Amino acid sequence: MSKGLLLILSGPSGVGKGRIREQLLQEMPELIFAVSATTRAPRPGEIDGVHYYFLDESEFQRRVEAGDFVEWAEVYGNRYGTPGAPIRRWLEEGKEVILEKDVQGARTLRRVFPDGVLVFILPPSQEELWRRQEGRGTEGPGEMTVRRQAAGGEVASACWYDYLVVNDDLRRAVDKVKAIITAERCRATRCLGEVQNIDRA
Amino acid sequence: MSKGLLLILSGPSGVGKGRIREQLLQEMPELIFAVSATTRAPRPGEIDGVHYYFLDESEFQRRVEAGDFVEWAEVYGNRYGTPGAPIRRWLEEGKEVILEKDVQGARTLRRVFPDGVLVFILPPSQEELWRRQEGRGTEGPGEMTVRRQAAGGEVASACWYDYLVVNDDLRRAVDKVKAIITAERCRATRCLGEVQNIDRA
Repeated sequence: MSKGLLLILSGPSGVGKGRIREQLLQEMPELIFAVSATTRAPRPGEIDGVHYYFLDESEFQRRVEAGDFVEWAEVYGNRYGTPGAPIRRWLEEGKEVILEKDVQGARTLRRVFPDGVLVFILPPSQEELWRRQEGRGTEGPGEMTVRRQAAGGEVASACWYDYLVVNDDLRRAVDKVKAIITAERCRATRCLGEVQNIDRA
Repeated sequence: MSKGLLLILSGPSGVGKGRIREQLLQEMPELIFAVSATTRAPRPGEIDGVHYYFLDESEFQRRVEAGDFVEWAEVYGNRYGTPGAPIRRWLEEGKEVILEKDVQGARTLRRVFPDGVLVFILPPSQEELWRRQEGRGTEGPGEMTVRRQAAGGEVASACWYDYLVVNDDLRRAVDKVKAIITAERCRATRCLGEVQNIDRA
């Protein structure tokens, strides 16, 4: 097991992963957010290199061919990729890394980083999820229908995650993810070095 | 996996398991403390049925023969046993049960309740553990030596636990165990029922 901790936040589109992740990063500044690359257009307020690396198709393709991404996928007509080298370096250095991934990407990352901790964010209900997706207002009606159809299957895939957190309330959901991070820091497989030091003392 | 949660707090004698457990029960009153039986004499302030069921040798032996204990062992010349029926009933009912066990007992319980969550409480150092054992002043010097010898091996056995918590500070240790309980409540294997309800919604 690598020294660091990789936390993968996932869940259906519109469930509120982004807001949970932002709040987590504020309250646990020791976490490193691993920024993904995408060919989709920035939403209002999104900053290149902070929320995503916004790349055009040809640059994205160049990086795919260079093997820069540990996973990449096309989702709703846009491509998303996870740069692997920085994550591997941080984990080697014992850092704690947080990733935000759609369900498809999280599934691939589980295979690339088997020690990664997968947290699935759930909506309190299917209706609430649709309401939130509409409320965001960043997608056209066609895209909405595609997202709605996908969300049913995505929720069903929660069974191969490590943890499930219902996002009924942002504060409660953030506190649960923080508890998961604290608990994972205490995992015997992660901190046996400490015990060996005590035995040698 | 049973509906409830069984948390087994363990660690070397004198490490402070009892104080952590007492604080936990105050702050999470939904937890049920599964009281063990013992043939040892009560320490000052200990109440029968609250801290232990204090039994004489013949009553303890009667219960051993009746199969009342899921595990029992002799530790430092006294016998300790864990009544099984109430724990099984609570877990069936979806309750959250906390047990405080020496290292030997915890090892047996791991086999009886494979879904149990084992938390090993560690001293910040071996010297600090000895200091705490002496500070308690409830054992004679001979018993102290036996406990000291055992503690080395007990700390080494931490590797087959789920979580390790260093008790350097009571507040910090309690917060870590609370985070572990919160995280375990979010475990996908424990709460998939919730997801199925969302899918049906």
